[in-house]
Amino acid sequence: MSQTSENTLKVAHQGFKYFTHGLATGEWNDFLEILTEDFNFWFPQGKYHGLNVGKQQAKEFFQYVSQAFNTGLTITSLERVTSNETTVVFEFCDEGNLMGEPYKNRVAVSFDVREDKICGYREYFGSNGKSN
Amino acid sequence: MSQTSENTLKVAHQGFKYFTHGLATGEWNDFLEILTEDFNFWFPQGKYHGLNVGKQQAKEFFQYVSQAFNTGLTITSLERVTSNETTVVFEFCDEGNLMGEPYKNRVAVSFDVREDKICGYREYFGSNGKSN
Repeated sequence: MSQTSENTLKVAHQGFKYFTHGLATGEWNDFLEILTEDFNFWFPQGKYHGLNVGKQQAKEFFQYVSQAFNTGLTITSLERVTSNETTVVFEFCDEGNLMGEPYKNRVAVSFDVREDKICGYREYFGSNGKSN
Repeated sequence: MSQTSENTLKVAHQGFKYFTHGLATGEWNDFLEILTEDFNFWFPQGKYHGLNVGKQQAKEFFQYVSQAFNTGLTITSLERVTSNETTVVFEFCDEGNLMGEPYKNRVAVSFDVREDKICGYREYFGSNGKSN
């Protein structure tokens, strides 16, 4: 299957929907299902800071995120979506409680798409996570 | 002039070239020239954390950046460029010295384009700025 911008956008939007659901509920199965086996991701800080490789690592990471935000993390606004043939970037704001403290951030996540799966993910922080 | 994706990409690439030059040399005139008077920007942390409005504020900000990185900040690789009709996101890695300490980061910057100028800028950090 050849890669088209249209398909890339479609797969990334589906992935982002599952990602949003995972953040809100802690249920990551749909999101994990759409990842390639060699999925890799970059995260800005903490235990998973830097490059992480493989779907099992991703599973552990997203469980760790949901443990930290155990009442869920809500995407309050999706601000911009940009794309090219293989990559889609979502800029959004989120809000929740991190270890019981009010948290909000501005975030950019970049999904790389291969055929009907997501093969890469990079997260970038636009704020310091404090709620004020 | 109507907004087209092609023009948006062209203006944003020109802006990114000036931005790169500003980071490397501390000379920001070309970059400031391409900004609208009502240019606004979001920055993740420090003195300019949050939303900043107006070209004068931008001028002070970029001078402040160049004072902090007084030997220049080099973009070591441009990793992805994504776009839509009005916005272009550049994902890149940079490296330099921050107040004399080795610094490197993964960064996403998002430029909003209006006609032949850049009217908005959002910066996101993909790392913690430490060089290891």
